[in-house]
Amino acid sequence: MQLMDEILENSLIARLACGFPRSPLQRNRLQETDAELLALPGSESILALTTDWVVEEIESGLYDDPYLIGWMTVIVNASDLAAVGAAPLGILLNENLPQDAAPDFVAQLQDGIRDACAAAGLYVLGGDTNVSPRLEMGGTAVGLVEGAPPLTRIGCRPGDYVLGSGPFGGGSGFAFVQFVLRPRGAQVDFSFQPKPRLQEGQLLRRFASCCMDTSDGLLATLDQLMRLNSVGFDIDCTAETLVDPATLALSGSAHIPTWLALAAHHGEFELVFTVPPERLDSLRREAAAIGWEPPLLGRVVQKPRISLSLDHQTFTLDMGLVRNLFVECEGDIETYFKGLLQMDSALKEGVNRHDE
Amino acid sequence: MQLMDEILENSLIARLACGFPRSPLQRNRLQETDAELLALPGSESILALTTDWVVEEIESGLYDDPYLIGWMTVIVNASDLAAVGAAPLGILLNENLPQDAAPDFVAQLQDGIRDACAAAGLYVLGGDTNVSPRLEMGGTAVGLVEGAPPLTRIGCRPGDYVLGSGPFGGGSGFAFVQFVLRPRGAQVDFSFQPKPRLQEGQLLRRFASCCMDTSDGLLATLDQLMRLNSVGFDIDCTAETLVDPATLALSGSAHIPTWLALAAHHGEFELVFTVPPERLDSLRREAAAIGWEPPLLGRVVQKPRISLSLDHQTFTLDMGLVRNLFVECEGDIETYFKGLLQMDSALKEGVNRHDE
Repeated sequence: MQLMDEILENSLIARLACGFPRSPLQRNRLQETDAELLALPGSESILALTTDWVVEEIESGLYDDPYLIGWMTVIVNASDLAAVGAAPLGILLNENLPQDAAPDFVAQLQDGIRDACAAAGLYVLGGDTNVSPRLEMGGTAVGLVEGAPPLTRIGCRPGDYVLGSGPFGGGSGFAFVQFVLRPRGAQVDFSFQPKPRLQEGQLLRRFASCCMDTSDGLLATLDQLMRLNSVGFDIDCTAETLVDPATLALSGSAHIPTWLALAAHHGEFELVFTVPPERLDSLRREAAAIGWEPPLLGRVVQKPRISLSLDHQTFTLDMGLVRNLFVECEGDIETYFKGLLQMDSALKEGVNRHDE
Repeated sequence: MQLMDEILENSLIARLACGFPRSPLQRNRLQETDAELLALPGSESILALTTDWVVEEIESGLYDDPYLIGWMTVIVNASDLAAVGAAPLGILLNENLPQDAAPDFVAQLQDGIRDACAAAGLYVLGGDTNVSPRLEMGGTAVGLVEGAPPLTRIGCRPGDYVLGSGPFGGGSGFAFVQFVLRPRGAQVDFSFQPKPRLQEGQLLRRFASCCMDTSDGLLATLDQLMRLNSVGFDIDCTAETLVDPATLALSGSAHIPTWLALAAHHGEFELVFTVPPERLDSLRREAAAIGWEPPLLGRVVQKPRISLSLDHQTFTLDMGLVRNLFVECEGDIETYFKGLLQMDSALKEGVNRHDE
């Protein structure tokens, strides 16, 4: 797992987990799935469990609207269930609330939770509430995988198609608005409210060779899949297919290179997945039946690389550098943003240009 | 639930939960169980889920030893599984670690987690790690209830015996050492490392009419059971049976009334449970077979009251006042401790003396 450990976050997780024995019932190894998979004694079903917190997003001011904070507390967890193809059961909530939280603020927080749960088909099962100097929200979602095996991050092969559950970039577009434009007084109307993709995930269990959610952005997700599967990804659709319209417009008006919206650390909680060629047509038929048209992004290739064709140029991206940059900046958004622009310049100077 | 809402913590939980619909699969209502119970589709088994965090205990300095923090992160969750009689499956961990956490500190934290998991029969299934300005630890434990119905907090009747999984008071004894004695330079050797009680909980499913863990201390637990069941509890065993030896010795040497060790907010994560008279002998036989002698504490009575016979006196305790005092002090330990001593004086002056 040399390739995996090049990513600072991966090596931290590996270090924290290494002292613990694995359950004989656990059906996934470290990093193989978005949610943990547990065989249920006395049953054919597999339990899917995931826990995710919204801490840094609140602390940094990225999420400052209580309704959005509540919504995202559910979505970050629902998205992991979607990526293993589980049917949603419920969620346990953890709310660390400041002593002086205004009743209206708490009410909006609860509204966001309630609406996201309804959209995802999750029930609030219980939780734990603490008094805390700062607001922190988290949850643990539980789902069930019956019948076909769960989706995992492992299994794509060269020649497979790469698809998404929707266009990408909205997570970073929103971060750009929150961190760069709004502090400078710009009045920007930019909506960020990721949809749960549980229905899509359950359908994908019969078609996809691997799947992962883009909680850290599309390119970081592809980079992780590259390291796990020892394959590469050639992404070569149109910018209109790949990037959501609002983010594309923003990238144009603010003169920010479009690929950075796919590379930056805050994702949009869509699914990215691969499908063997022989299953593509039947997937599309069944997807159409639930009103879903997953965009086709590119292909899986043998060589471990991320190649992106965008704005009439093809780049090979070293996403390891981009991902570690975020950790190295220790949450300093200004430094991170400057670092990303420097990477773009280096790329444009041909340092990393893909030799065709 | 008028009686329940007199307790500030209960009314906060009711307020936060009231906007959410309940899952048709959920087998417990609010406050009826220590862990959430979920019927598994396509199975006779019930899933037990619980989430609990160690936040205030770290923030206040009550837990300052990393091994203990790790140990307790597991135990607070394992204890809730024990109180519903679930077999342990696993735990998801949430670790919010400061950027500058020393490697040795983190290693001891992980040692405490690993040892507590081994003691409880829980496997670490996965988790979520965040960088945080302060250390916060939490988890979500999952267990399975097969066969006999789960234990709940509901069902005791007048005449039932009250028993414990072990002696009580150690949680508050430890808090007294940490908050009062050690800051004054006293060298006190006081061990606090609650045992998981999962084996006992599973056995109790066939005998107990209700069960709850003493995470908030024995008397607060009995008070909650009183409100939920509309019964009372007469506790009239010897101090040696009721209180653990180290806490009893501490209470003597520091001249602190013994009942305060059972009333204060920090518990010892034992189980308190009730058993109908006709089942007492068979429980004791089966308990002895696993090397366990649950102490007999008293009886369930019709009148909703907590009556405690200790130090040759019998008191009727208004635990609502004691429980709300903790919330009202907003974490100010000095004020809380003074308030408790004032309550003791009022009690000794006969304000609340039990009329026999």
